Amino acid sequence: MRISVSRETLYAAVQNVMKAVSSTCTIPILSGIKLTAHSNGLTLIASHMHMMIRHDIPLTDTEGIIAIHSTGCIVVPAKTFSDILRKFPSDQVKLDIAEHLVLTIRADSSVYRLCGMDPSDFPDMPEARADLLFNIPSPLLYRVIKQVAFAVSSSENRPVLTGVSCRLDAQGRLRFLAADGVRLAVRTIDLDISPVPVIHPIIIPGSNLLELAKLLRDEQGTTEIAFGESWAVFKTGHTMVYSALIDGTYPNVEHLIPISHTTELLVHSDAMIQAIERVMLLTDESQLLRFHAAGHHIKLTARTAQVGDVIEELNLANRTGADIELAFNGKHMRDILRSADSERTTLKFTGKLNPIVIEPSADPQSTYILTPIRT
Amino acid sequence: MRISVSRETLYAAVQNVMKAVSSTCTIPILSGIKLTAHSNGLTLIASHMHMMIRHDIPLTDTEGIIAIHSTGCIVVPAKTFSDILRKFPSDQVKLDIAEHLVLTIRADSSVYRLCGMDPSDFPDMPEARADLLFNIPSPLLYRVIKQVAFAVSSSENRPVLTGVSCRLDAQGRLRFLAADGVRLAVRTIDLDISPVPVIHPIIIPGSNLLELAKLLRDEQGTTEIAFGESWAVFKTGHTMVYSALIDGTYPNVEHLIPISHTTELLVHSDAMIQAIERVMLLTDESQLLRFHAAGHHIKLTARTAQVGDVIEELNLANRTGADIELAFNGKHMRDILRSADSERTTLKFTGKLNPIVIEPSADPQSTYILTPIRT
Repeated sequence: MRISVSRETLYAAVQNVMKAVSSTCTIPILSGIKLTAHSNGLTLIASHMHMMIRHDIPLTDTEGIIAIHSTGCIVVPAKTFSDILRKFPSDQVKLDIAEHLVLTIRADSSVYRLCGMDPSDFPDMPEARADLLFNIPSPLLYRVIKQVAFAVSSSENRPVLTGVSCRLDAQGRLRFLAADGVRLAVRTIDLDISPVPVIHPIIIPGSNLLELAKLLRDEQGTTEIAFGESWAVFKTGHTMVYSALIDGTYPNVEHLIPISHTTELLVHSDAMIQAIERVMLLTDESQLLRFHAAGHHIKLTARTAQVGDVIEELNLANRTGADIELAFNGKHMRDILRSADSERTTLKFTGKLNPIVIEPSADPQSTYILTPIRT
Repeated sequence: MRISVSRETLYAAVQNVMKAVSSTCTIPILSGIKLTAHSNGLTLIASHMHMMIRHDIPLTDTEGIIAIHSTGCIVVPAKTFSDILRKFPSDQVKLDIAEHLVLTIRADSSVYRLCGMDPSDFPDMPEARADLLFNIPSPLLYRVIKQVAFAVSSSENRPVLTGVSCRLDAQGRLRFLAADGVRLAVRTIDLDISPVPVIHPIIIPGSNLLELAKLLRDEQGTTEIAFGESWAVFKTGHTMVYSALIDGTYPNVEHLIPISHTTELLVHSDAMIQAIERVMLLTDESQLLRFHAAGHHIKLTARTAQVGDVIEELNLANRTGADIELAFNGKHMRDILRSADSERTTLKFTGKLNPIVIEPSADPQSTYILTPIRT
């Protein structure tokens, strides 16, 4: 292998695939990036047990960015390789496998020799047989992930709850849902496919979707998505993200969303987020925040013994139904309002102990629920 | 106590004094800030065992910034008070001691009540009898601290070495010196005082000087300095910093600076700093870096078993004397070149094992030495 490639392009590619390098993984080969120089360009692959990212730097479309003098393959330690490229003294990087399993990285005034690993030890790409294939705009996929994936459970007690449930109905509506027992986030998107295939619901690890979201942040194009039996694959630009699926059946939780309510409030989301954050300065570890809506105001209060207490008053944009007084986890409500990312939000209540329904005005296709805290 | 004060001014004052609040201190009262509203304004004081910072918000010079309706005194928890002010919803803060040891912090829509502590438990200000009083421009003091204080020892084995030694000679030259056994930094400034008083050398904790430097970063004015028997006091703007001194006698180390040399190199400091940082990506914990000057080039090399090695070549700006080959701690050399903050730096050598003398071209009054590593 002997190639010459733009430092900026290579460094960006390494940053992309490094999202699949686990810092805690104990299998040495998985701390590496597999570099393959072939006649069509350079391919970088990184992987942990449940996720694999592949990035291609193709010879075509990228005139002058890369030149392949000879092909070859090696696995290099991801962190050191990335650090070297970050501080690299030249715009052009020359990579060279001169000796067995040693990668030489060269600029005019610098020569690095990095001990590599045997690429035949690196895990293979998963088979990509797809039960469902569709495209959605990358900004929409980014928004859906941000709206849903934060609500997965962080506890491994019930592994299915650490994932986002994806289910396609007969009308071609794809529903993303996450829940952790206290809060639930659900968002539907309409897929423009016909006929609508019948596929089993799948569960994608929430942490993998959040890594995918980082890749999508500034993407304006389209993401191609394939759901298979044991993998979901996302292709955006020159990057492919393979996520393993979580085995098991997702519990039926949608019936938990109340369909009627006795109080409906319309709040200015930003003002409410900021008020919650101020009040939370005086909550204890329970993050318990008391909420009281009366007239056209909300009162938020919190207290920590030996530290102090706080009262915040907020104006409501609108209100129908009875006064309501209850308590909830302030951080959870803040996270929901933030993820909803809507100028105004509707809160619906059916008594002190029933789940609060939260609906962002900007997205009628997304709904959240939060279970109050019994006091 | 009942006062009204600009949020921005109060928050900045709290940030200033909080540099003296230790997060690890086990004495509850020292986790607080003492607020005193008096007829001339508001005084904030914070303290840990070896440092005290006082900041005044005076009634004069600050029209409309502060109004004192009634005087009083309370100690409030620093972190919570600072967090509340950071997120405060109004430009104007109303502070009020309504009940015993409870501070009310009020905006139009928010009321915080913070449990305070008894101000009579707060330590008194140290006595400020001064043996030496002088002024220096704050930007110069900032530079002197940055050039010297980084070199103090981080080990408590010899407490005097954790401080910066300050000594005034008969010509009115004040010398700041720090050393940790491997490296030494010294900087002299000329004080414009006459007659020159005879004072004992003092030792100021390096960590206190580094906190002071944070306060001085953007100061353009003058700092008034007083050295006493057990305290050094620095006054800049409305802030006073009291630093306890370290007991003991600073070892005589200046004779360690070699006065002759066999090789003298002039390097471009920035290029050398960057080359060192690149080479250090492949050093192990010893941070050992090999240095070889021959002709008009420097070669920097490093190697870590099982990871790889690197060679960097640098051009010299000038050179006299013999070729030289030795090894040193790369991080130490990088820190020295950074603190020196000079476009070009002279390196003087007298053999493989003798201290390297480092002289920034921009500041003839500062000198560093670094002891090579025996290999």
